[in-house]
Amino acid sequence: MDAAVSQLIVQAVAANVDSGRLWSRHMALAMFGKRDDGGVNRQALSEEEIDARRQLLVWTQAAGYRASMDPAGNLFIRREGQQPDLPPIMTGSHLDSQPAGGKFDGVFGVLAGLEVLQALDACNVTTKRAIEIVVWTNEEGSRFSPGMSGSSVFAGTLALDKAMATEDESGVTFGDALSEVLRAFAHLPQRPLGFPVGAYLEAHIEQGPVLENSGCLVGAVSGIQGTRWFSVKVQGKAMHAGTVPSKMRKDPFKATVAMVEALGELLVDDEDLTRFTVGRVVVQPNSPNTIPGSVTFSIDLRHPDANILARMSDRIPDVCRRHAKGCSVTIDETLTSAPITFHPAFVDRISRAADALGISSMVLPSGAFHDAKSMSLVCATGMIFVPCAEGISHSPEESAKPDALAAGARVLAMTIAELAQSESI
Amino acid sequence: MDAAVSQLIVQAVAANVDSGRLWSRHMALAMFGKRDDGGVNRQALSEEEIDARRQLLVWTQAAGYRASMDPAGNLFIRREGQQPDLPPIMTGSHLDSQPAGGKFDGVFGVLAGLEVLQALDACNVTTKRAIEIVVWTNEEGSRFSPGMSGSSVFAGTLALDKAMATEDESGVTFGDALSEVLRAFAHLPQRPLGFPVGAYLEAHIEQGPVLENSGCLVGAVSGIQGTRWFSVKVQGKAMHAGTVPSKMRKDPFKATVAMVEALGELLVDDEDLTRFTVGRVVVQPNSPNTIPGSVTFSIDLRHPDANILARMSDRIPDVCRRHAKGCSVTIDETLTSAPITFHPAFVDRISRAADALGISSMVLPSGAFHDAKSMSLVCATGMIFVPCAEGISHSPEESAKPDALAAGARVLAMTIAELAQSESI
Repeated sequence: MDAAVSQLIVQAVAANVDSGRLWSRHMALAMFGKRDDGGVNRQALSEEEIDARRQLLVWTQAAGYRASMDPAGNLFIRREGQQPDLPPIMTGSHLDSQPAGGKFDGVFGVLAGLEVLQALDACNVTTKRAIEIVVWTNEEGSRFSPGMSGSSVFAGTLALDKAMATEDESGVTFGDALSEVLRAFAHLPQRPLGFPVGAYLEAHIEQGPVLENSGCLVGAVSGIQGTRWFSVKVQGKAMHAGTVPSKMRKDPFKATVAMVEALGELLVDDEDLTRFTVGRVVVQPNSPNTIPGSVTFSIDLRHPDANILARMSDRIPDVCRRHAKGCSVTIDETLTSAPITFHPAFVDRISRAADALGISSMVLPSGAFHDAKSMSLVCATGMIFVPCAEGISHSPEESAKPDALAAGARVLAMTIAELAQSESI
Repeated sequence: MDAAVSQLIVQAVAANVDSGRLWSRHMALAMFGKRDDGGVNRQALSEEEIDARRQLLVWTQAAGYRASMDPAGNLFIRREGQQPDLPPIMTGSHLDSQPAGGKFDGVFGVLAGLEVLQALDACNVTTKRAIEIVVWTNEEGSRFSPGMSGSSVFAGTLALDKAMATEDESGVTFGDALSEVLRAFAHLPQRPLGFPVGAYLEAHIEQGPVLENSGCLVGAVSGIQGTRWFSVKVQGKAMHAGTVPSKMRKDPFKATVAMVEALGELLVDDEDLTRFTVGRVVVQPNSPNTIPGSVTFSIDLRHPDANILARMSDRIPDVCRRHAKGCSVTIDETLTSAPITFHPAFVDRISRAADALGISSMVLPSGAFHDAKSMSLVCATGMIFVPCAEGISHSPEESAKPDALAAGARVLAMTIAELAQSESI
């Protein structure tokens, strides 16, 4: 088959993504854990998530795909290839949500994968490699922290035993909740952790406003920016707000204001790639007529470039100490996550697929973590973003347009259809 | 009696203040509501406060003074004068404490008054006017808000009915708790609310660090500074900390930082009289990886000069709006208390008494509220401060030195002994 013919075939596959079916399946899955405010509460390994997985199996078994599960509860749905021994192309995401989550986060990646399989069916295309949809266990981390545990266990960066020991707020262990899921799907064949995968592609809503603001329907994701979290404790002296002259105060909130002001001037760049957020501030005793005794605040700093992130982070302690205004300062690093660069050839492939389909696209980094981060350690990995309204996510207000979801699924379908024909990736 | 002789007599009275007795009574009263950390929990109208009042009556009845109570539970202890029809000189403070309070706040004013009476006894001096110690009900306001309710009801600025309707955290009304106190002291003669008072003098720990820093043992209090409280709500947009470029954010904490920085530059003066405090900061949702959706912060602004306080307050809304960084800003004034100027002749008398006794003194405003604020509306009023360690108060760490307490009581004794001989004040 020459390149021109093959290009026509993969375009036909993309054209067979069914926008209406994709949308109505999002609405159908949103019934599992439905909240009165229009959002979704379907936390990891809950009854609601088990029910959503069952619904997915109804759709995929009707289409003739084979389901299987690994010991971490990761669910795989396989469309067989001509050469079953070649590692499959994998695509998917997760079905768990935040407690006050939306209808699209995670779900889109799973349902877009199902569209790819069904579009291939519609075109009667048999690929060289098998294609598998994956539903990763506990991406969100809201019930069992940390998140991305299913993909981390699969990728070998987290021991299953360690994940099993974590507890939710009511004392249920991940292990106990997982055994409910394994029992519910005991009829499925077992897969080993970390079986070989040829490539991984994940479609997801952006969870940020960049695509919407640019007017693009699709983003080719360059990587996941690095993140470092710091907790800064500023210890002053709690005193009566009326009686202590300002020169005699050790006011940790005034020090915090000076620190955050100075950090804001430092943690910035011309391209507006640096993300610097103070999201958590705890003032003690937090009374209007008492000068605070202590303030603890968080720093969330992200940048796609590891060197820049390191250089910026290294300056934080000095800046905080210079603006301590007589208070003592303690700084702890509470999370460190190095930047990930996705497979550059995939960024190109996704951009070219969008171009070929006449879908507007741009290259952008991911601001949030995704299971693709785990998978990038074990195989060539890429991600496709679609815009969500105002960039809002982890909220019942989370919203995406049917056209954008379909555009993302079409680009995914074309990219996967090409890759699944390649013996070498 | 000529002036020189009378001066010798009042000095003798001051000399008969018993430093050891004054100290040991502080320690004795600290047993009522004693906390394991060395502090005191003796909230208004509690069993513990009733017991402390009973202990006071044991001491005062042994000395032959007559106790009485008004319908607000204010307790009066009278040393009779030669002319019982002249309005008495009143001195005192309160015996209720904060839930995590100290041994000296309020207690000192009551026990210093008792020293004055017993020092007059020791010198066999009979004054023209009667002298009355007062124990005001609910100065602290920690159990029943607002505080200073006993003195406010006495001064006619708060209706007793209105005070009685307030509830503590467990739903007990001030009225119910007050009736327990009135029952416990039902054997005492009843006094009317707001009976005529010739002058009011209150001794108190400073609750600030000014005296300690100056090295003075006594402060002649010029007045109580004015206070205005504001609640500023900054409404932005909660979004993912990783995905939203800084130029697309509406970050209410960054706006708060800019506002507080700008307010700090404005709300300041060369004499360091302005008190500007941001004591309460509530960030929503207060998660490290979420750009805050809203921040609500308090402004506590105090100054002794009503015009300056008004001018500064008037500029707050404009400064906040100029630094809103795209957020919306709502500002509510939650408390307004005009400055009080104490009777200038009393400030002089107190300063001169300290000089005559060789006690170092200075004139300073009060940063905190006191029952003297209520009384300044109905009679000539003054206050005497003594230093407390590091200015700490409303804390189990609250501490004062026996010498300082005795010095304050001596100046109080001399001032009252003079005033009680005057037919006109």
